[in-house]
Amino acid sequence: MARAHEAGALHSPGSSATAIVPSWLTPPADVNELLPQLWSQTVERGDAGGLRVGGVDVAELAATYGTPLYVVDELDFRSRAVAWRDAFADAFADLCGGADVYYASKAFTATGVTRWIAQDGLHLDTSSAGELELGLRGGVLPGRIALHGNNKSRGEIAAALAAGVGRIVLDSLQEVDLVADVAAELGVVAPVMLRITVGVEAHTHSYIATAHEDQKFGLSLTSGQAMATVARVLARPELHLLGLHSHIGSQIFDMGGFEVSARRLLGLHRTIEREHGVELAEVDLGGGYGIAYTSEHQPLPPAEIAGRLAEIVARECLVQGIAVPRVSVEPGRAIAGPAGFTLYEVGVTKDVALDGGATRRYVSVDGGMSDNIRTALYDADYSATVASRASQAPGVLSRVVGKHCESGDVVVKDEFLPGDTGAGDLLAVPGTGAYCRSMASNYNQLPRPAVVSVRDGSAKVLVRRETPTDLLALDAG
Amino acid sequence: MARAHEAGALHSPGSSATAIVPSWLTPPADVNELLPQLWSQTVERGDAGGLRVGGVDVAELAATYGTPLYVVDELDFRSRAVAWRDAFADAFADLCGGADVYYASKAFTATGVTRWIAQDGLHLDTSSAGELELGLRGGVLPGRIALHGNNKSRGEIAAALAAGVGRIVLDSLQEVDLVADVAAELGVVAPVMLRITVGVEAHTHSYIATAHEDQKFGLSLTSGQAMATVARVLARPELHLLGLHSHIGSQIFDMGGFEVSARRLLGLHRTIEREHGVELAEVDLGGGYGIAYTSEHQPLPPAEIAGRLAEIVARECLVQGIAVPRVSVEPGRAIAGPAGFTLYEVGVTKDVALDGGATRRYVSVDGGMSDNIRTALYDADYSATVASRASQAPGVLSRVVGKHCESGDVVVKDEFLPGDTGAGDLLAVPGTGAYCRSMASNYNQLPRPAVVSVRDGSAKVLVRRETPTDLLALDAG
Repeated sequence: MARAHEAGALHSPGSSATAIVPSWLTPPADVNELLPQLWSQTVERGDAGGLRVGGVDVAELAATYGTPLYVVDELDFRSRAVAWRDAFADAFADLCGGADVYYASKAFTATGVTRWIAQDGLHLDTSSAGELELGLRGGVLPGRIALHGNNKSRGEIAAALAAGVGRIVLDSLQEVDLVADVAAELGVVAPVMLRITVGVEAHTHSYIATAHEDQKFGLSLTSGQAMATVARVLARPELHLLGLHSHIGSQIFDMGGFEVSARRLLGLHRTIEREHGVELAEVDLGGGYGIAYTSEHQPLPPAEIAGRLAEIVARECLVQGIAVPRVSVEPGRAIAGPAGFTLYEVGVTKDVALDGGATRRYVSVDGGMSDNIRTALYDADYSATVASRASQAPGVLSRVVGKHCESGDVVVKDEFLPGDTGAGDLLAVPGTGAYCRSMASNYNQLPRPAVVSVRDGSAKVLVRRETPTDLLALDAG
Repeated sequence: MARAHEAGALHSPGSSATAIVPSWLTPPADVNELLPQLWSQTVERGDAGGLRVGGVDVAELAATYGTPLYVVDELDFRSRAVAWRDAFADAFADLCGGADVYYASKAFTATGVTRWIAQDGLHLDTSSAGELELGLRGGVLPGRIALHGNNKSRGEIAAALAAGVGRIVLDSLQEVDLVADVAAELGVVAPVMLRITVGVEAHTHSYIATAHEDQKFGLSLTSGQAMATVARVLARPELHLLGLHSHIGSQIFDMGGFEVSARRLLGLHRTIEREHGVELAEVDLGGGYGIAYTSEHQPLPPAEIAGRLAEIVARECLVQGIAVPRVSVEPGRAIAGPAGFTLYEVGVTKDVALDGGATRRYVSVDGGMSDNIRTALYDADYSATVASRASQAPGVLSRVVGKHCESGDVVVKDEFLPGDTGAGDLLAVPGTGAYCRSMASNYNQLPRPAVVSVRDGSAKVLVRRETPTDLLALDAG
């Protein structure tokens, strides 16, 4: 796929008849089939053929809450969260008494979500005052909350320390004194970790163990920056150094990057303990675990990830001759992503003749890049299915597009949809539980959709739909 | 530049010492210099070295309204709008009695903006009920408003017709009957144009005259789709066909694409007139005119664009043997973009050692991809300058990054900033008047910045800053 051309014409390089179907996409035997890895656990087709989630017909959700609509399968979200929690607790039980799972708020957060996190005993990863506030509102114990960020404001640091968060992850030398000064003002000791750039870049199915990382985050391992910052932290009595942190990428399926990262991180951990005569109680291996957006993705189950990470940590600690620190990880997408889907109503459909005799069907929906920027932003792939009914029509290669005044406004680049898909049909796009509502905009003055959670036959609003009045509330007139 | 890697490490391919400076970027002789093509007309450095706009110190704006802050230079916006209006009126005066300039709302809109449009006698291009509403609130005469969109809702069409908009641009065969039916219900005749895909793709400095366009917009010229739709429109008495419309891309500097587009569009115009014995009163050549984001961009002045388009239209109408229809164009970015800049406060700075001995300085600001997604979304380039003071320090190649929990959160990829740029400095990024606030999100629960307009020594809020309370207003608790 070509990069999105802003507000302009999209020239798709693969537009000859033979080349327009991506290699990973095969025509389905049955256009109504729901691939289990793409859909949250309670999603099924009802007897009439329409999709149901949590025992509720999606047609009923659309009628009650309107479209576009983000739907979260509460049972799926929470059992996924619990699966991560338990997998890490079990895998690390003998090694270091368990491991902590921090749900990464940035994927998607709301008071209703952090309440689940609190009730289900997970920890919470936040990276702003707003995310912290939602965590506290949901009842997450402050000691279980982490505050991240490459450029935290003084106000955010003060809010976190006043709340009593369990850790602030320091990201630069400058931040050491900033956090220590705020802690001094508040008369508290700030528990801190240091984000280290370990020189690993993970990209979905592979990783690169580079000598450097050309990015804004973290303290460089190789340049001496990390050790200089450690010395500065240890010199400030207002700070308590818990340990080191790394994060190597996102949508990762290859564990190799985590292995190299853990080795480098624990090597530094050892150096710090030896040189400074301190004991570091924790290590955080970050997030980035991939999910299935299409049939081409085969994510590892949490138990397998936890088991492999436990092996890696055990081996590295043995080699380094250090006590095994308490381990933590930060999945966000892996919990929220597969638990959600977006429900749209179809409007205009259009067949566009391409070179070589091929045709692409454009299926327009009532949302678009304002509710899912990932397709345009990351060239991301998604899947889709007609949700309001089953169809006997054969699959036709389709592109699901939004209603924005921009050619790059694509939701699903390639999917086989029933040939009779048309105006009034509901369309569901799975895997949108993460990084869709959280990155949503009002582009073209479209109000942002509601998020509803569904469980045991009933639905509940997590984030209400914006109204035209909400939009005008910011307009100064 | 590599494509942004979501939430992950950025591996910049050009990271050796010799290759990290982009070819178009040269170290400035004076880091305080303001290149005139990048800044709105009233921006200057005051005696103390800080930036002033509309006679107001940006430090005062930051103190009053906070940062990040979108600043619009009212005089610049309006004189640019008037320059477009007059250039087209003049260039087309003898040809067809003038031409109409539709300001494209999607670039940036607010009641305060549409009030300027109304007062200054421009027309308005909208593509949703929300954009239409803001146009009406600002006092734009309904007859001067156009409604666009590939998937307009019935409600949007009804709102537009009830308001009495001057044109609805039809985008598909299906929409013909939808608009006609709504018009029939309301007892009005809908003035319509047809968006034609003319098979021209314009990309900044070049264009391709392809046989097809693989995109969601418009009716294909070559497939017969356009002519079939014309017949359908003419068969519905509730519709009045004004003429044809095309839009070939965005951020265009090469007039060649407009020439090919006009030729094809006017060819179809002639065919319709001959085959159906009708006269088409109008033709719309769309928008897409480029602006300067960096020193590499040299946009044409409106008078030159209008003059070249007038030549093209005159010649094509002569060749086709048709009367010259009333011409309209739809600049958005070209009016709003250069009139605005974003004001940030600098926080953490960090030098990252790259391969080959090079160093990149990361300068973090208090906003980021939530207030400017264009850098990550379109791989767009921007410029920046320290705004709160002049500096005697030499320029250092810097990357301006935001505070979001994502590596792709870059605002300005490459700029020479003073070597003493540091925490507390104000930084201004020009060219952000278009497609920044309009595409802004609450990613990481950051409230969206205010937009203020400044003129003659005083500032006025166009869109107020979101508060944490605004964000929580949608949270269902």
